[in-house]
Order: sequence, then structure tokens, then C-alpha cells
Amino acid sequence: MMTPGRLFLVPNTLDFGVSADSDLREVLPAGVLRTAAGLSHWVAENAKTTRAFLKRVDAVEPLARALQEISIVELPRPPKGRDTGAPPDLKPLLAPAVAGHDIGLISEAGLPAIADPGSDLVRAAHALSIRVVPLSGPSSLLMALGASGLNGQSFAFVGYVPVDAMQRTARLRELESVSRKFRQTQLMIETPYRNASLLAALLAALNPDTRLSVSCGLTLAGAWTRSDTVARWRSQPAELPSDVPAVFSLLAG
Amino acid sequence: MMTPGRLFLVPNTLDFGVSADSDLREVLPAGVLRTAAGLSHWVAENAKTTRAFLKRVDAVEPLARALQEISIVELPRPPKGRDTGAPPDLKPLLAPAVAGHDIGLISEAGLPAIADPGSDLVRAAHALSIRVVPLSGPSSLLMALGASGLNGQSFAFVGYVPVDAMQRTARLRELESVSRKFRQTQLMIETPYRNASLLAALLAALNPDTRLSVSCGLTLAGAWTRSDTVARWRSQPAELPSDVPAVFSLLAG
Repeated sequence: MMTPGRLFLVPNTLDFGVSADSDLREVLPAGVLRTAAGLSHWVAENAKTTRAFLKRVDAVEPLARALQEISIVELPRPPKGRDTGAPPDLKPLLAPAVAGHDIGLISEAGLPAIADPGSDLVRAAHALSIRVVPLSGPSSLLMALGASGLNGQSFAFVGYVPVDAMQRTARLRELESVSRKFRQTQLMIETPYRNASLLAALLAALNPDTRLSVSCGLTLAGAWTRSDTVARWRSQPAELPSDVPAVFSLLAG
Repeated sequence: MMTPGRLFLVPNTLDFGVSADSDLREVLPAGVLRTAAGLSHWVAENAKTTRAFLKRVDAVEPLARALQEISIVELPRPPKGRDTGAPPDLKPLLAPAVAGHDIGLISEAGLPAIADPGSDLVRAAHALSIRVVPLSGPSSLLMALGASGLNGQSFAFVGYVPVDAMQRTARLRELESVSRKFRQTQLMIETPYRNASLLAALLAALNPDTRLSVSCGLTLAGAWTRSDTVARWRSQPAELPSDVPAVFSLLAG
């Protein structure tokens, strides 16, 4: 019987390819770059950005074969809306592994299968008894959590909060209440152009003694983290960039 | 006015120094090793293991000064018991940064200030307006989450569960109920010698259709992840090692 290939979870940078001239070795381990350079089969959110990523890999660790000979298959796009409902059957994407080839799973930023649709593919791999091997790389969520100084012994990532103002306020108050009940840091993200409006909503909805931390552009030039009480955020407001990813963390006071 | 130093959150390996002959570049980015090699002031959970870590750094990226000239201050040990109560004032540990020197914060494994006492120091840094800079490195929690294939869009890390059998069962059922309510993956850890008893407790307490994933020894030789329903875990039991860290994740079915 043939040994099946493995599914490697390959981390990406946090720069969304914008700092494509920066050296991948700043944020990715040499061992990970070596593994990535050896893979001939990929599953990705976006084939074009994955080809750009592989060019950056090639610059520091030559690819085992030419880029045009590397297979990159895109994950099906989730249906519109923020809840994806029943997951599609992704086993066909794993055919190369069944045939004995290792596959790399990569997302647009950071660790695959975290805050992205990749987990459906990982579940399919387990169903086929394909070994899943996560590799070490940057996670904006946990880097933001560490930099927040908020509770790192109990925390939750909740994804996005509603865009509608009333629903959003209700959701932020619910998260503050969960945070108080379990002494649990609550982390969320937003599309960058809504960073400022999410911050305004947080400052309006939360109690003055709740702690709020915002990390902007982690690993990028000019990255910063501010962690303070809501009261002090209100008295010393900050401008958030609208073109850089941010992670928001709160811990009820 | 003097520019204050920064507080770098420096990731450690996940091998607890056991694979001290393995190359740090397998799991830590070259940029991180370069930053670590340049630091003369450290705050750590354990000075001895931090010296061993710095020797491993030196083997691939020469330290800027001799090891005996590098200051390593230990974080105060948290009081006995799993809840640490009111945090101590750690501002004195940041005196080098106030005096203009960069400081590295490092924990025994993985990212500092996550699932360890380091967050008190980070909070003290923010109170002193010291810049906090998290660096990219391995997180066993998020690598386990990615490898689980469970929901990576909403998840919580809850630390340890109680050791007492009845309290533990109650807590595991509470976590399953939270997982069902919020469709949220729940992650927990245990001291390695209790891995097998936690697995047994999980299999006894959870519903058959709840999904359970266990990742053992991530980044180590022989690392594995199994993700399956509780029903199939019961019918095909697994032995967990008692000397290797494991991460347990569940998602109510």
C-alpha cells in the first residue's frame, strides 16, 4: 500500500504581500521555508497571491521545481454572508495526498485554518487518515494577545462583530459580559477600512474600567500596540489606519 | 529625554530544551534569532533554561555579548493554586527599559504572555509607556487548533480544567455546552503526566457526536494530531504519552 502524503499547514506572512520586498526570514523559520520550497501541490485561498508567496520563498530557498510546474488549487469560496453553513466536501482537493504527494495549505496571512476557510480541508484530511502537520509561524491573534498584557490564560477569538450599529453594540456588551463572567480576554478583527468605526463603537459600548488593546500592522514597519482602560482611550483618542489589519482585545475591568 | 527601550516578546521553542541539539532555525525565524542575540536584558520564567536557550541562539547567531554579561531576571512565581489573584507590581523589572535598554521577555515554551505569567509584565510596560513588540514564533495552541480542523473562526483557550474528578466532569460538560451555544472550539492543556486521565475524562463526559482533537508533541519528532468524534475515539482508543505536552480541543457536534 502506498504511503499517503501529508497535509502541511504552511504559515504566511502578515503583510498580505504588500511588503513583498521584505525578507521572509524575518517572520518565517528556515525549516518552514525549506518545507515550503519542496512542495509541488498546494491548496490556497488565492492562487495568484500564493504564486507571489512562492516567488518570495524562491528568493531565499530555491523551489524544488519551477513555479509553473507547481499545482495550486483554490479552496471554494464560502457563500456570501459571515456564517458559512454546511461545509462543502473537500476530499477531491486531497487527491494528490491520497496518491502519495505532500500538500501545503496556505492562507492569505498567518496560520492556515485559523480565522479562514481552511479548516474544512483539514477535517477532510483527518477523514482520509492523511497526516496533518502544522508548521510554526506568525499568528496576528496571539501576537496581539501577548502584546495586550490582558489575560493570556483564558481568551477567546470571536471573529467579526456585526456591522449594524445596534447589533454591534449589543454584541460588544455581550462580549464584555462574557469577559467579566469568565475573566476571559475577547479578541476580534475587522476589515481594515472599518477599524476606526469599530474602535468608536467599542469606546461607546464598553465600561470605562474595561481594558481595551489594539494592535495595528503587527510585523510591519510602524507596528504598534496600545493597551489601556476605556476611560483613558476616551480621554486620549487614537487614529487607526484604514489600510492595515488590526486586532482588538478586551478584558472587562 | 532618553528614548526608552522596548519590551520584545521573544518566542521559545516547544521542546522545553529536551531536543537541545535540534536547530532553533527549524521553528524560529532568523529575524527573531537576530533580535534575541542582540539583547542584554531578559525577564524570564526560569533563568537557567533561558541561559540554555541563549546558548542555542549563540550556536546559530552569535550573541552580541558574552552570556555571563547578559542580565536575566526571573518573574516572581505565582502563588500556589491555579488562580493567581491580584498581580504583583512588576515595574521594577522594567528599569533597564526605562534606562534606554531593550528587554526580552521569554517563557518556557512558545509565545510569552500566553498561558504563562508574563502578561503582568506586559501590562506594567504599557503603564510605563514602554513599546511592546511581539515577535513571530510557534504557538502550540494555534498549531493544535489549525491541525484539529475544528472551528478556527471562533475558539477559546480555557487553560487547565480541575483535577478533581467530579469538578472536572462538570467543567468539561460546561465547556461542551458553551461550545454548542457559540459554535466555538474549546482548547485546554494539562500537565503531561495527566494527559491520559484527561483524555479518559473527556471521553466519559462528552457527547458521542462532539468532535475531539488531541495534538501531541507539536514540532517534536513523532508529533501527531488526531481529530475525530468522541464515538470513534471510544471505539478506537489511543495511548497518550505521559512526558510530552498535548493540546486538547473540542467542538460540540
